[in-house]
Amino acid sequence: MAAKSPEEEHPVPTFGWAARDSSGVLSPLKFSRRATGEEDIRFKVLYCGICHTDFHRIKDDWGGTKYPVVPGHEIVGVAAEVGSKVTKVKVGDKVAVGCYVGSCGSCDNCANDLENYCPEKIITYNATYHDGTRTCGGFSNEMVATEHFVVRVPEKLPLAGCAPLFCAGISVYSPLRYYGLDKPGMHLGIVGLGGLGHVGVKFAKALGLKVTVISTSPNKKDEAITQFGADSFLVSSDQEQMKGAMGTLDGIIDTVSAVHPIRPLVNLLKSHSKLILLGAPNKPDELSFFPLLILGRKMVGGSAAGGLKETQEMIDFAAKHNITADVEIIPMEYVNTAMDRLHKNDVRYRFVIDVGNTLAAP
Amino acid sequence: MAAKSPEEEHPVPTFGWAARDSSGVLSPLKFSRRATGEEDIRFKVLYCGICHTDFHRIKDDWGGTKYPVVPGHEIVGVAAEVGSKVTKVKVGDKVAVGCYVGSCGSCDNCANDLENYCPEKIITYNATYHDGTRTCGGFSNEMVATEHFVVRVPEKLPLAGCAPLFCAGISVYSPLRYYGLDKPGMHLGIVGLGGLGHVGVKFAKALGLKVTVISTSPNKKDEAITQFGADSFLVSSDQEQMKGAMGTLDGIIDTVSAVHPIRPLVNLLKSHSKLILLGAPNKPDELSFFPLLILGRKMVGGSAAGGLKETQEMIDFAAKHNITADVEIIPMEYVNTAMDRLHKNDVRYRFVIDVGNTLAAP
Repeated sequence: MAAKSPEEEHPVPTFGWAARDSSGVLSPLKFSRRATGEEDIRFKVLYCGICHTDFHRIKDDWGGTKYPVVPGHEIVGVAAEVGSKVTKVKVGDKVAVGCYVGSCGSCDNCANDLENYCPEKIITYNATYHDGTRTCGGFSNEMVATEHFVVRVPEKLPLAGCAPLFCAGISVYSPLRYYGLDKPGMHLGIVGLGGLGHVGVKFAKALGLKVTVISTSPNKKDEAITQFGADSFLVSSDQEQMKGAMGTLDGIIDTVSAVHPIRPLVNLLKSHSKLILLGAPNKPDELSFFPLLILGRKMVGGSAAGGLKETQEMIDFAAKHNITADVEIIPMEYVNTAMDRLHKNDVRYRFVIDVGNTLAAP
Repeated sequence: MAAKSPEEEHPVPTFGWAARDSSGVLSPLKFSRRATGEEDIRFKVLYCGICHTDFHRIKDDWGGTKYPVVPGHEIVGVAAEVGSKVTKVKVGDKVAVGCYVGSCGSCDNCANDLENYCPEKIITYNATYHDGTRTCGGFSNEMVATEHFVVRVPEKLPLAGCAPLFCAGISVYSPLRYYGLDKPGMHLGIVGLGGLGHVGVKFAKALGLKVTVISTSPNKKDEAITQFGADSFLVSSDQEQMKGAMGTLDGIIDTVSAVHPIRPLVNLLKSHSKLILLGAPNKPDELSFFPLLILGRKMVGGSAAGGLKETQEMIDFAAKHNITADVEIIPMEYVNTAMDRLHKNDVRYRFVIDVGNTLAAP
């Protein structure tokens, strides 16, 4: 393990914004990145989305955060240097890095393009890389990663709007595919209209599904329907509405990570259908829904982001169907305010930092 | 709704044993059954298994029991009379009725041979039949049901041992098939070695699976392995054993209906695998397992018995592979003692009443 300071442990000087302690306050930091290896791609970061997990990680809400920590795992930019063995990207190409920068490469999951389920996967920041140093995320001027963990971004997509697709986007796209919730005409429920939910609606509509948004916020109904193309909207606290929709859905993608009742959602499913959890809270449900699973042969499953191959497929699909996230672009110095607003759900629908234009060298 | 007494409401006199109140004590009862309609099969009951649900139903543990109630839904016998339109059974054939005697016949589930999930399914006893009368189960001398709900029993199977297959058997066979846990070489866990669990091991071995039994009773290890052919055995309270088996199973069939921890079972699964609940308790789990579903893309599903087509398939499969339940055959007058022993899990592995030889007319 490197005992050197972040500024000294690698040869390439870089800089970004980091949290220094569990206050989570972000401020400029000089650090360093490795030299571009023969399988590496170095790129200038242009935009980086802010994910809810960034908020929790910088405050050490889950434990395990090592400071200083440079967050950000929805990173897009332009390739600046490529190693001699790199084949899929050339200098000047638009590229992205999402949640992962490494994995073991030899387990069953890795062999099946499911790096996201590799027991030794290396997340994009706050993890220990193969060389023993800490990984640093996209709140920085430059990024370096092996070709395998870099995704090509189609030319036609606006970069700011597609940054969130590399976490929020793949996190909803992957379960739609894996759980077979991608057949035209299926009736899908999406719980929560936030960063994941709003792109979930867009992907589901592009796949030809009928989409019902289920939310605690009645005031999101208009946006859900007129802006994102949802077919209908259920206010989850409205017992009558929920009762009227019982047994109507072929599947549900639940994007909500706050503690919330699961049983009413299982009730919305037809028999032989699935509820997929993306952001489940670490607390017991207030009432067991197990009997409902049995009586209706229903399933509750989970899903965590996606592998690299599927992430490339997702962004190509997004380009074909003109799918981007609805974003609020902010300057780097606004990031602490953005974190506060994020915590209050005051964002429609994702903050993206204009790293390229607003990150000044400390 | 018939206001007549059970003895008067139908033309055919019959008799059996019924519970009169929530004490659940069973005693002889004269009642009646309908005349054999053109689509009906009447049969002499020879054996009837005792299911845990019988115990709960006669004591009204779940509410909704209407007395007198004649239990029993693992019913085998010999056809005595068949209606003019009956084609699949002739007088003298071995036949069976399991958990259901009716359904709507027109919903999606019925159209797909999933009568067991029909919202209007009619269970074999303690339900209201199409004609408004109460259904009565197999603790009786004769049974009548429409051809659709009667299963042909292969000649080669001993009747007593195959009676439990019509509830316990189909309840484990169906999820093995539906959830794809039927591929030779797969490693399956079966939780609980009772009525369902022990036939589950037999079906799974006949399908070519590797089977690990997971039980709270270390003393069942020998039987699991030598008698039923399980490959290995885990004592669920042994932390070391459970830890050593983490991530090794391709699927789990959980037959236990008492409250028990789910999280350790999810931990036994490989990524992308399924835990199937057959007898889940109606209480919250003490610790949420949701994060495990997400991180490993695992699923928790349910299953309830099986449709008629699949029940026929199950019993034909059982005949081909010589699968029967291990039963303790008892006379009718022993049934109240058997219920007490059942409640104490003192049975290996299913009580079956010798109705044909021991049920005397009251």
